[in-house]
Amino acid sequence: MNSFGKKLRLTTFGESHGKAIGCVLDGVPAGLEIDEEFVQRELDRRKPGKSNMETGRKEDDRVEILSGVFEGISTGTPIAMVIYNTNQKSKDYANVKDLFRPGHADFTYWHKYGIRDYRGGGRSSARETAARVAAGAVAKLMLAKFGIDVQSGVCEIDGIEAKTYDFEYAKSSKLYALDPDVELMQERAVLEAKKNHDSVGGVVLAVANGVPAGLGEPLYYKLDAVLAEAMMGINAAKAVEIGDGIASAHLKGSQNNDPITPDGFVSNHSGGILGGISNADEIRLKVYFKPTPSIFQEQDTIDIHTQSTKLNLKGRHDPCVAIRGSVVVESMMALVIADMMLLNASSNMQNLQKIYSPKGI
Amino acid sequence: MNSFGKKLRLTTFGESHGKAIGCVLDGVPAGLEIDEEFVQRELDRRKPGKSNMETGRKEDDRVEILSGVFEGISTGTPIAMVIYNTNQKSKDYANVKDLFRPGHADFTYWHKYGIRDYRGGGRSSARETAARVAAGAVAKLMLAKFGIDVQSGVCEIDGIEAKTYDFEYAKSSKLYALDPDVELMQERAVLEAKKNHDSVGGVVLAVANGVPAGLGEPLYYKLDAVLAEAMMGINAAKAVEIGDGIASAHLKGSQNNDPITPDGFVSNHSGGILGGISNADEIRLKVYFKPTPSIFQEQDTIDIHTQSTKLNLKGRHDPCVAIRGSVVVESMMALVIADMMLLNASSNMQNLQKIYSPKGI
Amino acid sequence: MNSFGKKLRLTTFGESHGKAIGCVLDGVPAGLEIDEEFVQRELDRRKPGKSNMETGRKEDDRVEILSGVFEGISTGTPIAMVIYNTNQKSKDYANVKDLFRPGHADFTYWHKYGIRDYRGGGRSSARETAARVAAGAVAKLMLAKFGIDVQSGVCEIDGIEAKTYDFEYAKSSKLYALDPDVELMQERAVLEAKKNHDSVGGVVLAVANGVPAGLGEPLYYKLDAVLAEAMMGINAAKAVEIGDGIASAHLKGSQNNDPITPDGFVSNHSGGILGGISNADEIRLKVYFKPTPSIFQEQDTIDIHTQSTKLNLKGRHDPCVAIRGSVVVESMMALVIADMMLLNASSNMQNLQKIYSPKGI
Amino acid sequence: MNSFGKKLRLTTFGESHGKAIGCVLDGVPAGLEIDEEFVQRELDRRKPGKSNMETGRKEDDRVEILSGVFEGISTGTPIAMVIYNTNQKSKDYANVKDLFRPGHADFTYWHKYGIRDYRGGGRSSARETAARVAAGAVAKLMLAKFGIDVQSGVCEIDGIEAKTYDFEYAKSSKLYALDPDVELMQERAVLEAKKNHDSVGGVVLAVANGVPAGLGEPLYYKLDAVLAEAMMGINAAKAVEIGDGIASAHLKGSQNNDPITPDGFVSNHSGGILGGISNADEIRLKVYFKPTPSIFQEQDTIDIHTQSTKLNLKGRHDPCVAIRGSVVVESMMALVIADMMLLNASSNMQNLQKIYSPKGI
Repeated sequence: MNSFGKKLRLTTFGESHGKAIGCVLDGVPAGLEIDEEFVQRELDRRKPGKSNMETGRKEDDRVEILSGVFEGISTGTPIAMVIYNTNQKSKDYANVKDLFRPGHADFTYWHKYGIRDYRGGGRSSARETAARVAAGAVAKLMLAKFGIDVQSGVCEIDGIEAKTYDFEYAKSSKLYALDPDVELMQERAVLEAKKNHDSVGGVVLAVANGVPAGLGEPLYYKLDAVLAEAMMGINAAKAVEIGDGIASAHLKGSQNNDPITPDGFVSNHSGGILGGISNADEIRLKVYFKPTPSIFQEQDTIDIHTQSTKLNLKGRHDPCVAIRGSVVVESMMALVIADMMLLNASSNMQNLQKIYSPKGI
Repeated sequence: MNSFGKKLRLTTFGESHGKAIGCVLDGVPAGLEIDEEFVQRELDRRKPGKSNMETGRKEDDRVEILSGVFEGISTGTPIAMVIYNTNQKSKDYANVKDLFRPGHADFTYWHKYGIRDYRGGGRSSARETAARVAAGAVAKLMLAKFGIDVQSGVCEIDGIEAKTYDFEYAKSSKLYALDPDVELMQERAVLEAKKNHDSVGGVVLAVANGVPAGLGEPLYYKLDAVLAEAMMGINAAKAVEIGDGIASAHLKGSQNNDPITPDGFVSNHSGGILGGISNADEIRLKVYFKPTPSIFQEQDTIDIHTQSTKLNLKGRHDPCVAIRGSVVVESMMALVIADMMLLNASSNMQNLQKIYSPKGI
Repeated sequence: MNSFGKKLRLTTFGESHGKAIGCVLDGVPAGLEIDEEFVQRELDRRKPGKSNMETGRKEDDRVEILSGVFEGISTGTPIAMVIYNTNQKSKDYANVKDLFRPGHADFTYWHKYGIRDYRGGGRSSARETAARVAAGAVAKLMLAKFGIDVQSGVCEIDGIEAKTYDFEYAKSSKLYALDPDVELMQERAVLEAKKNHDSVGGVVLAVANGVPAGLGEPLYYKLDAVLAEAMMGINAAKAVEIGDGIASAHLKGSQNNDPITPDGFVSNHSGGILGGISNADEIRLKVYFKPTPSIFQEQDTIDIHTQSTKLNLKGRHDPCVAIRGSVVVESMMALVIADMMLLNASSNMQNLQKIYSPKGI
Repeated sequence: MNSFGKKLRLTTFGESHGKAIGCVLDGVPAGLEIDEEFVQRELDRRKPGKSNMETGRKEDDRVEILSGVFEGISTGTPIAMVIYNTNQKSKDYANVKDLFRPGHADFTYWHKYGIRDYRGGGRSSARETAARVAAGAVAKLMLAKFGIDVQSGVCEIDGIEAKTYDFEYAKSSKLYALDPDVELMQERAVLEAKKNHDSVGGVVLAVANGVPAGLGEPLYYKLDAVLAEAMMGINAAKAVEIGDGIASAHLKGSQNNDPITPDGFVSNHSGGILGGISNADEIRLKVYFKPTPSIFQEQDTIDIHTQSTKLNLKGRHDPCVAIRGSVVVESMMALVIADMMLLNASSNMQNLQKIYSPKGI
């Protein structure tokens, strides 16, 4: 249950304050150049402590590829990647050892497993998402070979919405902000919350261009359904929409349908997916993140003996998880699309006949 | 790829105008009384043609259980259920045989498979959801044995929102409306759209009560992630939110965290899920449905030879898919929770020791 | 757990004396002609009651395709097939209702599920294999398009071994005997056992020709490992060998290695599989079947209350399950190879580039 | 495709001459003491270079647990284990860089992937089985809590068969020989082959005691079928038999059926499995290993350009892979049984009611 994907299959491991986190990415087609520097750069985009928008925990997040690559080329065997933890401060958690932090998974892990690694959230920490980004980087390398490009950015923080979407700009923004015009306001909202020992929510927009028509495996591995699973599974995600999503529910059919012409779809309310399958238009989705549950105000809670108590958190936390979350959204999107490409390879006899020599009966 | 769930596994088959639709539900624990009348009643709630809110296609949707039940009790073997189609009018589709209907899966199925059963949308038709409801009914029978109750209703149609949620009321409403006070307005919106040969969107709210803490399999089969997948996979769903969902993204951490007391959570912004695992509070989610793409206004489209043309649809369609969609949402929710119960059974040694005799080493 | 295969996925349902047995075959590529008569003919080869070598239960085994085929062509959606039971004589089992038949699954189903459908063995009956044969027939149709041919026959009955293997001959033999020279002796052994209210074991040999190199997914979905699983899962199978199998264990490496020349392998001790992947040589395997456990001699057993008792079986049973088992072996082999073809389609970038347009980065 | 098991899921990675090999073991129930020394001891049993029966490659095979264990107890999260390679001599393989070694996976990997890591066989090397042993050790720790014991030994080498089976003796034998009386002859056969630059085959017997009735998931995840898959997937395995296996095919039903008494089964021809489910008797299986394909005699082969050539192998290899293979057989058996225990936990309502509070409807 720590694996994601069917043909391109990511298995991750590791706890926030354990020895290491990492992943095994299985199903990468043989013959793909694996640019380790690119993988590292993707990790660098997600790594903590780069700015005052982020947790003070500094991790180099150096990734080491242990297998599956020979002379720079994927061999078709599992690619294992490991990132050793270096900057744990587990003693910050000594005082919450027996407490459940509101908004966190402490309570539920305890009830499920009867034990939890309380240090930094253990397995439930967003630190695990570094493994997703490493794997997503490999997926992106594959997608790039087919002209598919996945991008993301933050389109809303604390209710302050981007009016325009500039994915290039977002890349160099410390908020991964899509709209330079509201970026400063968004930054102030984050810093204001931080000052108040509080946190803010945010929304990430991600798009994929160049996706061919036909990706998605109906009826129970639809492209939009799997994207929804991938996104909702990211720490702190609480809602996902595809294309116009929520707005679609307020439209008439005559407004929401995308007319079709020989040159493609006239509009893209659908977000590039019809019947769970890509239509070659831009894939577009939004992920809504709740505010970071780790805040530095006193909170009511209970301990593992069900006694009332007050919680006073220490530790280091992002005041807005949506920011670094945008890199994770993008990585998961790349993994989903790459998986769907592999799965679709055997969808019809024409494809198979390109691979295997057809014979008469 | 036509299977859903891991330990309780639903596989469906069938096309809208084929001989039959149906499913195989695998993993139902042995020893469960299977009340066939209950399964049929659930199907009756979803079946088409019950009111002027729905398609004119009348299907009895009589379910026949072919296997897996012996003397009224599940045997642990696969439960196959079949529903024969009886009211196809395939000639209604003769004129769209070579056209792609905007907002439909015609275009994408064609590009994926190189062939499509154009009659009534074939496999992509919402008719398939009858199989989900039959399976969901069995899941509900199991959940009931543990005091778990899943309910749903329509909370918004054409932008008209319910202010209060009365799940009991919804059961007897022909709109499955949660709020009697806005039901009439919602009904008028549907009829107005229908009169204009148009359609409207809507939103479904579903809740599960009595769910024990500990359900959900992190990190890649989280309860919320799998619910999102299940919901986004329903025909016409475009967004899913868990708990406060979208609203959470606009809150501060201090507002959104649910304080914990010995009696439980003080609030339920989280929708009953923390870290992808149930916290014993009410599970709550919303699904946003786009307006039915089948409208009776002339639309621009192309044919399979990429030639521009005009589409004039015939056939029989619900003007608001969210209405009957609410039964499907509820069924999928029941299936997900039941699957998570089965998966969780081996989560820890204590559970295993209740089942198998522990021995010293 | 009633599904087999990964990309070509067979799910079966049904009990020996229930309403019907059947299957859903998911993942069949779109665009394949589905010759229903061929599927029926394959079922006819397996169907019971054709000769005095077989059970007296006569079933027409008429297969009905419910979905997934449109105008004779597969659409890429699940192919559901159903075979209604017609010749149950459930009263034959009234006297064993509370007894466990030695060599049968009664005891184990009871302990696992706490309930069992005792009529004709219920789900554990070899009658379920009809569903495998129906699905295997579809797999064969696909394989034939690529010049792949799967054949089988009985190479040993009651210790009487075939010296030569004539797969064409086997097709018209009522024992599916591979060697006409020993067929009569084998037949006599069966009839002798039958006369003595006893049963005999046997061995099936199956081969696949035309399989391209490269099929099999190491390390945990190897071609030989999955074939072994498929074969050992057939009712009454007790051993499986690939290529020289058991004999290999008695050879030296210098004897067992197959030298390689530009024209292929000089010998085929390996059975066409190296490292779990096909090498383009003939795939060859043997399956060893125990004698039918249903015999008509009095046997010691216990009842569900753990009381000693004597068992006197009625019912109708094959005196040698290996005979009809050979058709099942062949069907499972076809399913495995077809699945591996689909899985292999995305093994390397070259294959993907044949399907998707490659672009520069 | 590099994962094994359903609820207890092993994913392995690594190449013989890469940086490391390792695994992620997912699904280990929380609350199990993880005795790292035991895990290491199991690896020590398999590690190479312990005697003149084995390859000269010396690897310490120090296992490092990276995750999933907190204060010595499993947390329910994935247990990652890594073993760094230290004693590669990749230059031994320089001369076979472009050649296909007979009996090896070189040819098939090349045809499947278009690339191969030729150093020491890369991924196809039996070195990967160290990861299986590490995971199997964890499985054994779990099984031990329930009084289940898995043992193995070598029962035949080069045709020299054990007459008696002494599993305790096997533990301290450098051949893991089950019969002290033939051990010396077996050893001489190995050394004789080694002297002749040749290799010998062998057979491993494994048993599991204390397995409760009810394990195995029919019809497509039967205990015997999955054991067969597990065993045939081990490097150099060519045949698998359950219980009397091959001998069963030569028996009459009246000889092969195991009579049942209130005290259990009178005999155990079945090998403890009926209908794919354990019957609480001893589980017993044999695995037949071919002779090591790496021999030091000149062999005919071709290169990657399909040119004829002679192969003269260097490198270090076990003259009889069955010996160390016996530890792998045992490990895989433990993994299969542990997986089946987890899967079976939700087989019937009684089990679920032990875990979840039952309520009336």
